[in-house]
Amino acid sequence: MKTYLDCIPCFLKQALETARLSAADEKTQKKILDEVARAIPRFPLLYSPPQMARVIYGAIERFTGKDDPYAKIKEKSNKLALSIYPMLKKKVVHSHDRLLTAVELAIAGNIIDYGVKNNLDVEEELKKILDKEDKAIRREKSSLFDYRSFRAALKRSNTILYLADNAGEVVFDRILIEEIQKTYKDKNIIYAVKEKPVINDALRGDAVFAGIEEIAAIVSSGVDTPGTVLSLCSKEFLNIFRRADMVISKGQGNFEALSDYTRPVFFLFMAKCPVIARDVKCALGDVILLYKNKRVKEKAS
Amino acid sequence: MKTYLDCIPCFLKQALETARLSAADEKTQKKILDEVARAIPRFPLLYSPPQMARVIYGAIERFTGKDDPYAKIKEKSNKLALSIYPMLKKKVVHSHDRLLTAVELAIAGNIIDYGVKNNLDVEEELKKILDKEDKAIRREKSSLFDYRSFRAALKRSNTILYLADNAGEVVFDRILIEEIQKTYKDKNIIYAVKEKPVINDALRGDAVFAGIEEIAAIVSSGVDTPGTVLSLCSKEFLNIFRRADMVISKGQGNFEALSDYTRPVFFLFMAKCPVIARDVKCALGDVILLYKNKRVKEKAS
Repeated sequence: MKTYLDCIPCFLKQALETARLSAADEKTQKKILDEVARAIPRFPLLYSPPQMARVIYGAIERFTGKDDPYAKIKEKSNKLALSIYPMLKKKVVHSHDRLLTAVELAIAGNIIDYGVKNNLDVEEELKKILDKEDKAIRREKSSLFDYRSFRAALKRSNTILYLADNAGEVVFDRILIEEIQKTYKDKNIIYAVKEKPVINDALRGDAVFAGIEEIAAIVSSGVDTPGTVLSLCSKEFLNIFRRADMVISKGQGNFEALSDYTRPVFFLFMAKCPVIARDVKCALGDVILLYKNKRVKEKAS
Repeated sequence: MKTYLDCIPCFLKQALETARLSAADEKTQKKILDEVARAIPRFPLLYSPPQMARVIYGAIERFTGKDDPYAKIKEKSNKLALSIYPMLKKKVVHSHDRLLTAVELAIAGNIIDYGVKNNLDVEEELKKILDKEDKAIRREKSSLFDYRSFRAALKRSNTILYLADNAGEVVFDRILIEEIQKTYKDKNIIYAVKEKPVINDALRGDAVFAGIEEIAAIVSSGVDTPGTVLSLCSKEFLNIFRRADMVISKGQGNFEALSDYTRPVFFLFMAKCPVIARDVKCALGDVILLYKNKRVKEKAS
């Protein structure tokens, strides 16, 4: 996804939020905002929004000396998510379609950081997202929740690349990966995390903490952007990305970074931002499982 | 009120909204955003937020050739407000405290432009704002709705300067001015509008259209900012401002521009912006009648 003009005010909002999280004083916060403001005229709209994060986090690190302002939030998210793992597992075991429930949980798990920040009852929030009847109906009928293609792709694929999104959410990913391994034996699942801290994106340590190491191979994509921006990925990762039989991409950031590329990708995310909701043509808060592949794109254009 | 850091992302949001309203194409919208972004590092936080409007509207005019993008909205607001004038008058006539109802209406009238933009039922919206029991209670008890001081000041003042806010809202101001003239005879009321178009702020033509000319003297403050920034006002206006026995300031913009000055001012506005709500220590959407004078300030500090 290219950067929309509506993303530009939001860049400054994110910079301010992160500056505050880094305990920068007001003067330093202003310096960080100024730096981001100065970068705006030079930022090509053809870039995807996650690429601006490099400017923001570069400024944060330079002015505050902190390279991981979300460290505490990530730790709390991981612990909170792991503490509800048995409850999540139970939800899956007792459902009509275990894989479907695991998919939905993996998408809804995105709210865990929000829960930590706002002291919310995560179990309650998950219920709100998943149990709403109208949402379930919408999902059944919608091309924006293409579960059928997803299941078919899982069946025929040997190597599956799974692009992680956030810390905490990694525990929900574990639930889905376990379910995939249980349903379709002998799958080679590769779980890709970010190379360096950016926002609350999952790093190797978060994946290991969640127990992913036992069920998938953990690799780094090589990027320090909150989305897998291919031009910034390592060669090793790009090889995996191109050769994988199936790519599962989690979260808005990865959607922003990859939605314009033509290799088939399954995008699993919650549409939390109005710009993305408009781009995808869904409602804010929708649980999305979008299959983008070259053929679909050619037909559409 | 000084500019808070949270205002900075909002400047870009406002610039984008206005650029779109001016029917600028996407490239031009980006140029306008770039211009505002470049101005951010040079903008002193000691300035009040309305001063940034000069940068925004300067860029809009330079890149689109339009100096009054809100012209249509203002016209619609004026007509809509005038069409409900009889209904508003009836509300006042049938109330227990006519002046109080007129004050509340004058504040709530701020929503008229929002109603026009979003095709809302203005009568319904006014009801929501004014009839809510909890709000009425809060207003009664709160120092943020100092109706007692307001009435006392009206009684003892001869020359009253009334700072207008928006087009459309001018009709609600007329209701209040009529009520003041009816309650306290022989008051010299001066109604100050902006000199040049900025956002949907009222100009002389809007005041005349609303029928203010028959009940008050209309003057221009000399400014082209969405708030009466004293350093930009005409000498003639400053004389009136300093010598008036009482100043009634309408709207958030005038509050932002004047809240740090020490002459006593009654600020009547709806707190629509979270930054202002925090500054004033009220809830979002609150109907505020705040009396700021030097003595109160000295006591507080």
